[in-house]
Amino acid sequence: MKLKESLYKSFNKITNGYATVSPEELCCYAYDATGQTFMPDIVVFPSSTSEVSQILEIASKEKIPVIPRGSGSGMTGGSLAVQGGIVMAMSRMNRIIEIDCDNLTAKVEPGVITGEFHKAVEKYKLFYPPDPASSSFCTIGGNLGECAGGPKAVKYGVTRDYVLGLEAVLSSGQIINTGVKTAKGVAGYDLTRLIVGSEGTLAVITQATLKLLPLPESVKTMAALFPTIDHAAKAVSAIIKESVVPRCLEFLDKSSIDCVRSQFGFDVPYNINAILIIEVDGTNQVVAQDAQKIREFCISKGAVKVIIAADSKEATTLWSARKALSAALFKIAPNKINEDIVVPISLIPEMVKRIEQIKDRTQLTIVSFGHAGDGNIHCNIMYNKQDEKQLTLAESAMDELFAHTLELGGTITGEHGVGITKMKYLPKEVKESEMEIMRGIKRVFDPHNILNPGKIFII
Amino acid sequence: MKLKESLYKSFNKITNGYATVSPEELCCYAYDATGQTFMPDIVVFPSSTSEVSQILEIASKEKIPVIPRGSGSGMTGGSLAVQGGIVMAMSRMNRIIEIDCDNLTAKVEPGVITGEFHKAVEKYKLFYPPDPASSSFCTIGGNLGECAGGPKAVKYGVTRDYVLGLEAVLSSGQIINTGVKTAKGVAGYDLTRLIVGSEGTLAVITQATLKLLPLPESVKTMAALFPTIDHAAKAVSAIIKESVVPRCLEFLDKSSIDCVRSQFGFDVPYNINAILIIEVDGTNQVVAQDAQKIREFCISKGAVKVIIAADSKEATTLWSARKALSAALFKIAPNKINEDIVVPISLIPEMVKRIEQIKDRTQLTIVSFGHAGDGNIHCNIMYNKQDEKQLTLAESAMDELFAHTLELGGTITGEHGVGITKMKYLPKEVKESEMEIMRGIKRVFDPHNILNPGKIFII
Repeated sequence: MKLKESLYKSFNKITNGYATVSPEELCCYAYDATGQTFMPDIVVFPSSTSEVSQILEIASKEKIPVIPRGSGSGMTGGSLAVQGGIVMAMSRMNRIIEIDCDNLTAKVEPGVITGEFHKAVEKYKLFYPPDPASSSFCTIGGNLGECAGGPKAVKYGVTRDYVLGLEAVLSSGQIINTGVKTAKGVAGYDLTRLIVGSEGTLAVITQATLKLLPLPESVKTMAALFPTIDHAAKAVSAIIKESVVPRCLEFLDKSSIDCVRSQFGFDVPYNINAILIIEVDGTNQVVAQDAQKIREFCISKGAVKVIIAADSKEATTLWSARKALSAALFKIAPNKINEDIVVPISLIPEMVKRIEQIKDRTQLTIVSFGHAGDGNIHCNIMYNKQDEKQLTLAESAMDELFAHTLELGGTITGEHGVGITKMKYLPKEVKESEMEIMRGIKRVFDPHNILNPGKIFII
Repeated sequence: MKLKESLYKSFNKITNGYATVSPEELCCYAYDATGQTFMPDIVVFPSSTSEVSQILEIASKEKIPVIPRGSGSGMTGGSLAVQGGIVMAMSRMNRIIEIDCDNLTAKVEPGVITGEFHKAVEKYKLFYPPDPASSSFCTIGGNLGECAGGPKAVKYGVTRDYVLGLEAVLSSGQIINTGVKTAKGVAGYDLTRLIVGSEGTLAVITQATLKLLPLPESVKTMAALFPTIDHAAKAVSAIIKESVVPRCLEFLDKSSIDCVRSQFGFDVPYNINAILIIEVDGTNQVVAQDAQKIREFCISKGAVKVIIAADSKEATTLWSARKALSAALFKIAPNKINEDIVVPISLIPEMVKRIEQIKDRTQLTIVSFGHAGDGNIHCNIMYNKQDEKQLTLAESAMDELFAHTLELGGTITGEHGVGITKMKYLPKEVKESEMEIMRGIKRVFDPHNILNPGKIFII
């Protein structure tokens, strides 16, 4: 589809020149973290809710797809223009409008970088827990769209749990307000949490009121080194039953360790096949006690060594290794299929066993790491797309992975969303009756299916 | 409407005799905590999801209203058969199906009494925070329908935050499953949180998977006595900014104190015009420290006296006074209009001032108490329905109360829902555009409008 010249002019006028159809620029908004590429017809950069509304009104009349986009760091294709159309880059709507220290709330635009928002609220000794690995470049808008989680979800929950209210624009251009500005509210249906996690298919979020917490006085980060993944998985199950709830409980398998071995800031012996990164927070005193308790606990479950970060520098190094992992995987193979399955925590050891079996059968490297504390495992199937045999094996590995996940009572996505990469698998988890309700809801919000079409499910 | 004999026979057969049309029995299911009465045509007591489904299938064909009902303790008429029809009493579906200590989840039927559920999980040292004042007799199903909160919401959130997944039956009789059994999940739209708080208008919940927490090691309850409500309100605002988050932060005004003065377990001098009930939890050590910190804090803000409960018996006495309040109000006047407004925490002093002005103008007793920690004030306008002048004044007081609430950026309902009593006011908070989306969603779930019709909004 080629965009009509007159439409380009309209969008350009609405955005005061912030619209582009230059192929070089379109290229920069054609990708995301899936590595797939779809060229949009135009990229617009609105600077206000009113501009978003005007653009949608025209798009709606002309039946042109509109794809809201943050930083393009999504893992499932949520921000890809799979049917062409208008990529609506929210980068100019990046104001932190208010940080309200009296009521522990903030008001932000969708283009705010999550990591920047963390820093901004921490200045006031406040805390915004959602923290995806991409926090240094992803946006709050993207986080809302996908209901992002991150390592602190085990204690603090996910993005959904920190959204009080939204301003959003419907596909028709109509501006709506959902939820409340207060700590609580149940007036009418919960449109707020319906829009959160809807992957940009229901409305374009233009402002969010977020809930904040007081910043914990102190944090302690530690790493526990285990001889086998089974030991580590059993330690996770056991820790979760204790009354100490760590704020993070991450695990890395042998292949993950190999990818970032030199980056931990301490030597990792070669007989170590799993590492848990554990973090506790609270008052100084509590944190010291909890760290000690967890250390003893890990050792009793077979940990060879437990290293407690002496200061925030050591902790940062440790986290850098964890955060570098996603990119470092490409040392293993040029392509990856990245999944974020969740299983009941007690079944992590069983799931790990089944992943080993898939590895044995396919002879592919499958790297597992992630948020063990809530059963959310990031499984990365590494392969070479050019090698047809590997491609087939990788796809069959993914089929098996999801089948095992669902068999164990799990879900195919803990925080990455469905997008395009999991569309095929969603009907395996969600029955046609529920899917039909979702389609009905989609039609209520977006009757012409112009908002991020071709995502989550076929209309 | 009179129910056809053949339908009565069908419902009776489906429920194995657990259906009644006897007027004496219908009476018992005609009321709720609003004091209003609407006679249903039949009450059915299904014992399984399949029975619920069969009943709804027939009701759908015959276009008969179905009103799901827990214990009838709702404050806004959610369980009233305002258009007659079938009251579906969920009291027989009251099994705690599973308490999973490994994964910190539970599976329950809707008829489980909330307080019984608390006791059941506490046996395993687990904790289910939602705790409405009616917990000794209200049901989990009712709590899910209204998204109930209670005093612990200030630290732990509301019912919505503890629901992982649902089994529910649509008006057509179709059984659906939403959400996950795991700690996390974002596969498709969030139907779970859409159904929670929808006041029985979207689907009949037949099973819920709930999230549990480890039971805090220790709890300390205290009462802080203030000379004026303004002192207390300012102390609340100040406490909320501290890094100690109390699990409860309740307040009682002078009229509330008068109602339950003899029940606190300690003398309340007559110069005391406001009491805060504050509760902290955590490890023994933390709790002792936090209690001390909050005590000093309250005194610095003008508290005349702070009493820390020495043991759980003293704490229970204190809470009994708080929980007895709702019923004790009838000492003041035979009728009450009970509202659960929420304002930003920092504006509680301003809201309190405005409530005083309404009192002065109307000369009615307005009793305020509630969950100050999240700005959720239960305002009770006491009057005599038989006295026409008082009735008019009470209604105008309610109008003013909501107007001030919305002007201060608040919401008309924090946890009681809209039901029938706030229908008239909902459009003052929620715009027509959002309302139209809600109606659209309602039509997707319940095209013939048989599920709890006449609630929340006019279709």
